[in-house]
Amino acid sequence: MSDRPKKVFIREEGPREGFQIEPQIFPLEDRVRLVEALAETGLTHIQVASFVSPKRVPQMADSEAFFAALRKKPGVHYSGLWLNEAGFHRARACPNVDLSGRISLYASDAFARQNNGCGAEEMLERQYAWMDLYDQFGIEVEAAMVMAAFGCNREGPIAPAKVVRMAKGAVELCASRGKILPKFYLADTMGWGNPDQVRRLVGAVREVLPDETLLGLHLHDTRGLGLANVLAALEMGVSLFDGSVAGLGGCPFAGHGDSRAAGNVCTEDLVFLCEELGIETGVDLDALIDCARLAERIIGRPLNGRLMKAGSLNAYRAIVQEAAQ
Amino acid sequence: MSDRPKKVFIREEGPREGFQIEPQIFPLEDRVRLVEALAETGLTHIQVASFVSPKRVPQMADSEAFFAALRKKPGVHYSGLWLNEAGFHRARACPNVDLSGRISLYASDAFARQNNGCGAEEMLERQYAWMDLYDQFGIEVEAAMVMAAFGCNREGPIAPAKVVRMAKGAVELCASRGKILPKFYLADTMGWGNPDQVRRLVGAVREVLPDETLLGLHLHDTRGLGLANVLAALEMGVSLFDGSVAGLGGCPFAGHGDSRAAGNVCTEDLVFLCEELGIETGVDLDALIDCARLAERIIGRPLNGRLMKAGSLNAYRAIVQEAAQ
Repeated sequence: MSDRPKKVFIREEGPREGFQIEPQIFPLEDRVRLVEALAETGLTHIQVASFVSPKRVPQMADSEAFFAALRKKPGVHYSGLWLNEAGFHRARACPNVDLSGRISLYASDAFARQNNGCGAEEMLERQYAWMDLYDQFGIEVEAAMVMAAFGCNREGPIAPAKVVRMAKGAVELCASRGKILPKFYLADTMGWGNPDQVRRLVGAVREVLPDETLLGLHLHDTRGLGLANVLAALEMGVSLFDGSVAGLGGCPFAGHGDSRAAGNVCTEDLVFLCEELGIETGVDLDALIDCARLAERIIGRPLNGRLMKAGSLNAYRAIVQEAAQ
Repeated sequence: MSDRPKKVFIREEGPREGFQIEPQIFPLEDRVRLVEALAETGLTHIQVASFVSPKRVPQMADSEAFFAALRKKPGVHYSGLWLNEAGFHRARACPNVDLSGRISLYASDAFARQNNGCGAEEMLERQYAWMDLYDQFGIEVEAAMVMAAFGCNREGPIAPAKVVRMAKGAVELCASRGKILPKFYLADTMGWGNPDQVRRLVGAVREVLPDETLLGLHLHDTRGLGLANVLAALEMGVSLFDGSVAGLGGCPFAGHGDSRAAGNVCTEDLVFLCEELGIETGVDLDALIDCARLAERIIGRPLNGRLMKAGSLNAYRAIVQEAAQ
């Protein structure tokens, strides 16, 4: 328990995840309202939308208008997601997008090929060109992320050595530019991870990362182990987590019949876990629960978050304190 | 990690929890089908129905007929729940009910009063009369359970000393009959628990329980921490858990607007966690997922379980093994 961080940093990915996976397109003012409400909770990084093909993802066709409509709160980073150079330039042309460089890596060759038409090693090679592009526009690299680090529906179990190889590759890439990688994330893209594996993988990559590099986890709750995995990670000293308010989003790789598999871990449930363990998040939990309920009203059906349905313990604790006075 | 059990024992409470909390009454043959399917998964204890006031709980009015309709599988314990002497005698009169004695205790005076019209200490006293009744009919006491052990919506945070007091009381009660309590359960009835609290409470009650008494947790997932709490408990050596297939049921004490707060931890998600950690459950996970999907079809709306929507990893692991051959 002594390795636990005092404070964690949470990236909110709900708006992009949630509005991208739904078949319908939600009114711009609703989406703006959700992002603006999230920015009032104390969350300091919100992934707003992606810059991807409007033909393939019509839900994200108006990302420029979405960012333009936002009243930004100082101190909050509003990010966009891009998957190729065209997307990057669209994001760059958009004044409200806060840019930071990302290194995208894969632990699964099969998944890398599915998404990019090349294997994991070639994806690593291609990141050198991305670094050139970031350098050209004066954009600092913030983080590297290894996708499918815990297992892959196409490739099966992933050997830790493959993940370690990618961690080394990211470190070398940064070193080649005289830089130290600030953040390194392991992503459980398809919900294969369990707490023992979290401990093994976190331990293994830490061996090859510089001491200055912070470790993060991008966890999915596809099979219900999201917060158990967070607990194991916290006790290994991991201090960076991604989440999705209300559990917005879902898993495009799994789903039985009409049912929808869970996606990212739910942010307010994650915040609740941390705060109950005495780990600071900087987030106003009740305000975040209000955001989750707003998200549910916008989407129009029950979402995956648990805490949003029961409420935090604050109200119950307050009643008791009042009674004692 | 060395305290982890090699094997856990899971009590399935889904049928009673699920069919009791729903406003409608489901066809008897559907309920029978679910219980019979659950008995084929390797689960050895299934709580089928309760013997409570048919006026207050019309969903459970036909518990006698439900038990009578079951084809029982040898080696499986089919239990019923009773809350008073009339209910106990109804259960006893029902040939298919497998009877075992339970000691019901409270860590919260306010919650005890709400349910029984008396405080926690008097509830403990009343258990002596229950022991007399069990002795009279030759029924062995199987377990004691302390409700609201982690916190109470009426009383607020619960001091561990109150839980320890009840553990001592249960031990003394058994000792007064020359017996050793076989199982002792802590119940997080209103979803207040967190992993640190699980560790503290389990450690505290173990100090006063005989070495022979097995420790169990009845956890609710009301605020999303169910499986994180299970993880903490496993690492403290806890080997008894209650669960509810598909997350059937809900929390009668919490719920925001139309939304329904989660109840017991979902059995198949719990089994998945244990099996991924190498802890035996004796349960066929894929068969249990099929039961969860059956439960969802019966109830007619998406239920809380995560794994049932994504499927286990078995199919993905099998594909990879085939490819390697």
